Amino acid sequence: MKPNIAILGATGAVGQEFLRILNERNTPVGSLRLLASARSAGTKIEFRGQTLAVEEVGPRSFDGVHIALFSAGASSSKQWAPAAIEAGARVVDNSSAFRMDPAVPLVIPEVNPAAIGSARLIANPNCSTIIMNVPVWPLHKANRVRRMVIATYQAASGAGYQAMRELENQARDILAGRPAVPKVLPHQAAFNVFSHNSAVGEDGYNVEESKMIHETRKIFGDDAIAITATCVRVPVLRAHSEAINITFEEPIGADGVRRLLSSAPGVRIVDDRANNYFPMPIEASGKDDVLVGRIRQDVSQPDGRGIDLFVSGDQLRKGAALNALQIAELMIGKSL
Amino acid sequence: MKPNIAILGATGAVGQEFLRILNERNTPVGSLRLLASARSAGTKIEFRGQTLAVEEVGPRSFDGVHIALFSAGASSSKQWAPAAIEAGARVVDNSSAFRMDPAVPLVIPEVNPAAIGSARLIANPNCSTIIMNVPVWPLHKANRVRRMVIATYQAASGAGYQAMRELENQARDILAGRPAVPKVLPHQAAFNVFSHNSAVGEDGYNVEESKMIHETRKIFGDDAIAITATCVRVPVLRAHSEAINITFEEPIGADGVRRLLSSAPGVRIVDDRANNYFPMPIEASGKDDVLVGRIRQDVSQPDGRGIDLFVSGDQLRKGAALNALQIAELMIGKSL
Repeated sequence: MKPNIAILGATGAVGQEFLRILNERNTPVGSLRLLASARSAGTKIEFRGQTLAVEEVGPRSFDGVHIALFSAGASSSKQWAPAAIEAGARVVDNSSAFRMDPAVPLVIPEVNPAAIGSARLIANPNCSTIIMNVPVWPLHKANRVRRMVIATYQAASGAGYQAMRELENQARDILAGRPAVPKVLPHQAAFNVFSHNSAVGEDGYNVEESKMIHETRKIFGDDAIAITATCVRVPVLRAHSEAINITFEEPIGADGVRRLLSSAPGVRIVDDRANNYFPMPIEASGKDDVLVGRIRQDVSQPDGRGIDLFVSGDQLRKGAALNALQIAELMIGKSL
Repeated sequence: MKPNIAILGATGAVGQEFLRILNERNTPVGSLRLLASARSAGTKIEFRGQTLAVEEVGPRSFDGVHIALFSAGASSSKQWAPAAIEAGARVVDNSSAFRMDPAVPLVIPEVNPAAIGSARLIANPNCSTIIMNVPVWPLHKANRVRRMVIATYQAASGAGYQAMRELENQARDILAGRPAVPKVLPHQAAFNVFSHNSAVGEDGYNVEESKMIHETRKIFGDDAIAITATCVRVPVLRAHSEAINITFEEPIGADGVRRLLSSAPGVRIVDDRANNYFPMPIEASGKDDVLVGRIRQDVSQPDGRGIDLFVSGDQLRKGAALNALQIAELMIGKSL
């Protein structure tokens, strides 16, 4: 059976990635419906030799649809998920709308595929959370993670296409001696770093950091994991990187970590000390795997329970579209 | 008395910063001798209306010099420090040559000014180490720091002027659709991040990270502080940023940290949660103070002993030239 697929948010950065990956994976597709808000309706998009017009999403948009891939923001997901489910579709939602809803599975296929079950609605985790947990999960299974301290290096495209264009335009302006004017992002993106542009809560954590903390616990099914994170935007177009410091329950060596990661799905080790060659966002961009390197015993934990890692992963692919498509594949028994 | 000053490495990024700060602070200077390797000798540099020619450093370069500011790399420091001291100068060395020598004080004036004593040779710490410890020291004095986990966001100019130019040129090339060619730095600097370009040791830490670990212990006079760091280059022209996670001996609150930092010398708090306005390298550039923000209780340490910070500081100023000049000022009893 070729499933009928709808993509809500088809013109966005993640929506475009859905189309690219469907093509790359040569996924069998019955009908493909491209949906968006009124603002983007009418946009023409090429897919497998056909020109498809983006339709404005409406109450009848999901009739006959088997799998609906949502990536148009949390409010859009809240508005349209009930209609899609009602129409018989199974929804994979890339927004934060339902992630912490106890009734909605939050899934990374490499971590907790069984959580999908027969759910009609599955939430796709936050991009930084996915990129961190693809390599951390196989370690956690072998030796429980007690605590993580994370600092992120997040690409502009995590805030959408326009943020990526803004970074490029600001770089052009600065190199030409003109001032950089922030419009999409709150601060100068080019040749600068700034604390992640999500709202900061009363505890001082921004929303991105809180997602990494709470989503990880839900995905791992382990409420005891202690996590702190500092999320930061860097002038990178695509792919997020993260410095991850881990405290395990039992002593663990860098060689053991390397061994566990070498057979972990979705992970590629890039850890060449002699050539100073480690994960970089430009090399993670467009790739399915999360790159992992700087694997070393943490000297600040003399009991041998500490490990430091540095990872890079494409937040539009594994951090969003690819992870959602992998969930969809599992939903329909690999026939997608 | 107006001291006679020599600057070794006068044409480098830090050397130029020495001249800028001498001017800004309106420092009384007797004679000023600009020294460099044969390659840069003959370069003309303006200083207070005079045109000075850079001289090739030699055995007689330090005759009559009171204070010699060295910033020409470790091998140059090893070669010329004995001659300068022999000639009667007191040397402030910005290289790593003598930092871990037990006989040589390693000084941040805000932290351990008394260590200067009557030493003829003082080492200026690593830039990332200084920027971290200006705000951490007043906290450590109030409540001993047990452990720190640091991730850095380091500017290209930390690798010198040419690295900064390379970042700009690569950005221009990429924006014009041309490939970026790394020459000075080992990897593409523009629109990318990469693990710090210093050699990686057998324990997996690179030299920059090891400096942060060992120099902090020496400066604080506390060998028990446990430190791990991940040092990373980001496409920023100037000023390093750091995400710092701290475990204290006793419980400590974010408000207490804010109070301690608000009166700490060399620190400016930039911590506006409502406006998502925190330390940024473009705002730290050219400034003397280390900017500190994202001050929050670390939720991963439920015993209340954890704090997270994010800091930005100009690594050519406070991280190098300014710190060295402050040491020189203390050496000659504030008369510099």
